[in-house]
Amino acid sequence: MTTKSRKTKGIVSLVRPAVRGLAAYHIDETPVRVKLDAMEYPFLLPAGIRKEIAKAARQALINRYPDPSATRLKQAIARIWKIAPEQMLLGNGSDELIQTIILAFGGPVITPVPTFAMYDITARALSQKVVPVPLTDEFDLDADAVIKAATRTKAKVIFLACPNNPTGNRYSDAAVRKVLDNVSAAVVIDEAYFSFSGRTFLPYLNRHPGMIILRTLSKIGLAGLRIGVLTASREIAAELNKIRLPYNINVLSQAAALVALRHWSTLNRQISLLISERAKLYNALLRTPGVTPFPTETNFILMWIEKDATAVFKALKKRGILVKNLDRPGPLKGCLRVTIGTPAENREFLSNLKQIL
Amino acid sequence: MTTKSRKTKGIVSLVRPAVRGLAAYHIDETPVRVKLDAMEYPFLLPAGIRKEIAKAARQALINRYPDPSATRLKQAIARIWKIAPEQMLLGNGSDELIQTIILAFGGPVITPVPTFAMYDITARALSQKVVPVPLTDEFDLDADAVIKAATRTKAKVIFLACPNNPTGNRYSDAAVRKVLDNVSAAVVIDEAYFSFSGRTFLPYLNRHPGMIILRTLSKIGLAGLRIGVLTASREIAAELNKIRLPYNINVLSQAAALVALRHWSTLNRQISLLISERAKLYNALLRTPGVTPFPTETNFILMWIEKDATAVFKALKKRGILVKNLDRPGPLKGCLRVTIGTPAENREFLSNLKQIL
Repeated sequence: MTTKSRKTKGIVSLVRPAVRGLAAYHIDETPVRVKLDAMEYPFLLPAGIRKEIAKAARQALINRYPDPSATRLKQAIARIWKIAPEQMLLGNGSDELIQTIILAFGGPVITPVPTFAMYDITARALSQKVVPVPLTDEFDLDADAVIKAATRTKAKVIFLACPNNPTGNRYSDAAVRKVLDNVSAAVVIDEAYFSFSGRTFLPYLNRHPGMIILRTLSKIGLAGLRIGVLTASREIAAELNKIRLPYNINVLSQAAALVALRHWSTLNRQISLLISERAKLYNALLRTPGVTPFPTETNFILMWIEKDATAVFKALKKRGILVKNLDRPGPLKGCLRVTIGTPAENREFLSNLKQIL
Repeated sequence: MTTKSRKTKGIVSLVRPAVRGLAAYHIDETPVRVKLDAMEYPFLLPAGIRKEIAKAARQALINRYPDPSATRLKQAIARIWKIAPEQMLLGNGSDELIQTIILAFGGPVITPVPTFAMYDITARALSQKVVPVPLTDEFDLDADAVIKAATRTKAKVIFLACPNNPTGNRYSDAAVRKVLDNVSAAVVIDEAYFSFSGRTFLPYLNRHPGMIILRTLSKIGLAGLRIGVLTASREIAAELNKIRLPYNINVLSQAAALVALRHWSTLNRQISLLISERAKLYNALLRTPGVTPFPTETNFILMWIEKDATAVFKALKKRGILVKNLDRPGPLKGCLRVTIGTPAENREFLSNLKQIL
């Protein structure tokens, strides 16, 4: 070992052990023809909206720092989702808001299993303890187990993705409310897929002071802009705002999102189209021998493959179709997850899947 | 106290004490005619570049997640600054990179005083101890004091803004290198103002394994895009990359920065203009009775005002000119900081300052 590499090792040993133990978050960056792995909205924004975004980009003061409060964007979001702007925080994607919440409260952090991976990854990157609590066999929240774990570990944060990713279902209201009523931790209801479910815990916000709701513009056409939305009591919002980086939403994302939200009815019409496409694909999968789709209130479908799911994943990828492979030992053994695409993409996925099976 | 407000207090009490003790970062959002408080590049990008950015925005796949590795943007930055892309990390502004560094190494964190406020604010928001070490009377780094404090406190990170904000000077090379040679902590050399100084520690990167260099596109025309740049050893870069949020640079900022960097010579020409404007303004301030400007290698000038600096700040603001008021008890008592603006803005600032004095 040279002196230099010995010195380097020395510095890396100063990195917190929890960080050294992590692997970097892996994203499949293979270029593919049909990308159905990431819950993206499959439609390019209509040409008219893109033209307006271009105009806004041309006029944007890129040489200046962005509005630190993103006032106009917050007002636009407040209008479409009926959220009080003074109880709202925007993040560089929900990812940043998840980080902010864990930074504010610390751990232990309770995550149902399986759920969205970033809760666990972020908590561990922040050197906080994660307490996994299995879902029931029906992928519902096991409220008693969550309450018990929260009490035993003195948990500070509980993440409930509702609807849940990657299972696609919404936890039963009774289970979620039982947790809300019986823990003294921040309970984060992540409604990333709200637009595909239509049901929300927002009306309960002012009844449960520990409740934090997350939404995002990512699943409804604007993933590239990275805009996550948080709402909570004024008191919690004020605490979280202290940790937020002051200029976290850049000038162009603010400007483009404002344009897109002016065309909310257009985005909404395409969401309705996706919901009807979801029903078509779900029914087609139900009729496909060797495939069992799970009920979904999101823009994706989890399915169990009777044969070797990993082999099916690879065969699809070879044909230029990327889905998410969840086939690992555990509750999702044998499962793949497919995002609802355009009608043409869904047909292509389905016909290739049938050929492979 | 109602039951609800009692419950709210209960949840807020779960927030980490270090966070509860913080005040939110205050940014002066008063709309003004001449904005010289934030080290922004005063020129709107030329119409041709803005047109190209508009085109890129129109074509951008806003409905898809951004390239998580920002590969093309990293390559463009690698070309202009001769940084190896595999030793580079991009952040949502340097703010995010500062946060990432502190998250990776933890504290204590050593910051010279006075220096860029975000080191201290971020460390405290992350519940880490901050060890302030005063600069010398000439605003140079007190290497012996830093080394002593680092050893005594087992510091994990030392932030050296070089050139320093808000003092404007560059620490002496000897002092910085003495620190690099004698501490076993990560030493962050923040070269945010590199373009206005021309001097860099980059050539020493591979000799000092604990060294991390920060740059930013914010001071050279692209503050609104929020793009901070970090370079370090491959090993440190890999550790920091584990904490980075996977989609931290949005689609439009990646696309717009790529366009702007294709026009690097244009941006550079305006940087040269700012440097010559800085000399003019500095000399004019030197000749102004009651004002003492400090030497600067940045795009701003720190100045000491013989009369009541806060009163001068307020009088300027009343006339629509915003500078930064640093007039508080301590080493910057009586000081204001002015960003170099366009030639017209600098003239307006100067004539108003003279009238007020």
